[in-house]
Amino acid sequence: MADKTASKQFPEVQGGGSLILAWQIKGKKVLVVGGGEVAAGRILNCLNADANVTVVCPTSGFNPEVAHRVERGEVTHVDRLFEPSDLDGADMVLVAIDDPAASTTIWKLCKERRIPANIADVPPECDFYFGSVHRDGPLQIMVSTNGKGPRLAAIIRRFIAKQLPKNAGNAIEAIGTLRGKLRKVAPNPEESPKRMGWMIKVSNAFNWEEMCDLTDEDMENLLKFYQPNKVPTIDELLAMRAEPPYDYDVFDGSYGFCVGV
Amino acid sequence: MADKTASKQFPEVQGGGSLILAWQIKGKKVLVVGGGEVAAGRILNCLNADANVTVVCPTSGFNPEVAHRVERGEVTHVDRLFEPSDLDGADMVLVAIDDPAASTTIWKLCKERRIPANIADVPPECDFYFGSVHRDGPLQIMVSTNGKGPRLAAIIRRFIAKQLPKNAGNAIEAIGTLRGKLRKVAPNPEESPKRMGWMIKVSNAFNWEEMCDLTDEDMENLLKFYQPNKVPTIDELLAMRAEPPYDYDVFDGSYGFCVGV
Repeated sequence: MADKTASKQFPEVQGGGSLILAWQIKGKKVLVVGGGEVAAGRILNCLNADANVTVVCPTSGFNPEVAHRVERGEVTHVDRLFEPSDLDGADMVLVAIDDPAASTTIWKLCKERRIPANIADVPPECDFYFGSVHRDGPLQIMVSTNGKGPRLAAIIRRFIAKQLPKNAGNAIEAIGTLRGKLRKVAPNPEESPKRMGWMIKVSNAFNWEEMCDLTDEDMENLLKFYQPNKVPTIDELLAMRAEPPYDYDVFDGSYGFCVGV
Repeated sequence: MADKTASKQFPEVQGGGSLILAWQIKGKKVLVVGGGEVAAGRILNCLNADANVTVVCPTSGFNPEVAHRVERGEVTHVDRLFEPSDLDGADMVLVAIDDPAASTTIWKLCKERRIPANIADVPPECDFYFGSVHRDGPLQIMVSTNGKGPRLAAIIRRFIAKQLPKNAGNAIEAIGTLRGKLRKVAPNPEESPKRMGWMIKVSNAFNWEEMCDLTDEDMENLLKFYQPNKVPTIDELLAMRAEPPYDYDVFDGSYGFCVGV
């Protein structure tokens, strides 16, 4: 009986999933072996996470997007087939070549050296899989079907992107900005509980969909409520906005500053 | 000019993100140091991905959920403070203790041994962060705000879960089942292009929201269209269902088989 009660109290384990992680690869060396379409996708994923990417592939095997990244100097290029010394200093290895034997050799070398690796299309030779990722500034949403429907993953990712309010990323940016400003205004570590409490009040007071359109000015205004430990309504906050210093030009659809307004 | 054209052709790099990964931890050893609330969340994440979890923590420091997992034998328990030998054989280390000095020591040991690690609340001592994950069978959706708004991540995750059609996980399960059955019906490797082509036709023909309610029987019926390389409409498919062998019992709300119907 005690067990039954406990089961209700705590979530049941639901196996069969992956451990979804936001890997921190900024400034780390990622080795991409191969230069085809799959490699192009992997490279973009890594660059979007600020990795230092090295691509090992003869130029003759380049997909146009990979050639474009190399031309622009976005990645380091090694113009030949893979050699074991390429693994020196690598923090992660992504293999996307049409050579199962060579792929397996690279996988084994990575495991000897304890380097996390992904051999495209060979699930048993993968420490991790990729999914379909929606990105909006600091917001990242990843859809994984655990290998059961990669096409569906992309469809669901697009479905989610459509449902999200516009500027969803901005709501997160705004909260991040507010937290940063707050630490400057109230830097005293002893105020930490008050700071945290107030931030929670703010998150609770506003609908996050309303926060998508908040500006830096709004965050400055919101900060004025920290000292008395209050939170305005969204309407009160928006009413505090100064007259806009710009006007919309109906002739060419661009914004122009209206000096003196 | 060539550069400008290329920029339009290929996605621009948008840095500042993480590399979101579906880590494969099934049967691997995850060491969790600590037994508080944060540890409880980490443990559940790992169990849901079929990891072998070892928790190092004096029983006196247990949160009720961690105690519950230990009691049920869902995790291995080491009833003392961390010792370096705990890292032997560990594939991943998650630290959630209120001792910054001890945490840093563990982090350094992990880096010497090249074990991926996460020290809770210490971003510079993290190979990866966790996000807020929605789970529905094989479907996993992870929301990351890249550390800018953990509370918002949970709010956005709940928002997404509400927008998803009911049984979204079932659509993926159905496609996975169909692919498995198809490989049995048409095992010839030479038929692989036809198989792949037909699976794509199926994905394109049905709205994925319609697929959420498909059953195993529907998949069997759908498979009959593979040989002539056709795909029925959803209505044609549903019309093929046999009369249900069960009936709903209005008296006690349970399903009962109606023998002979």
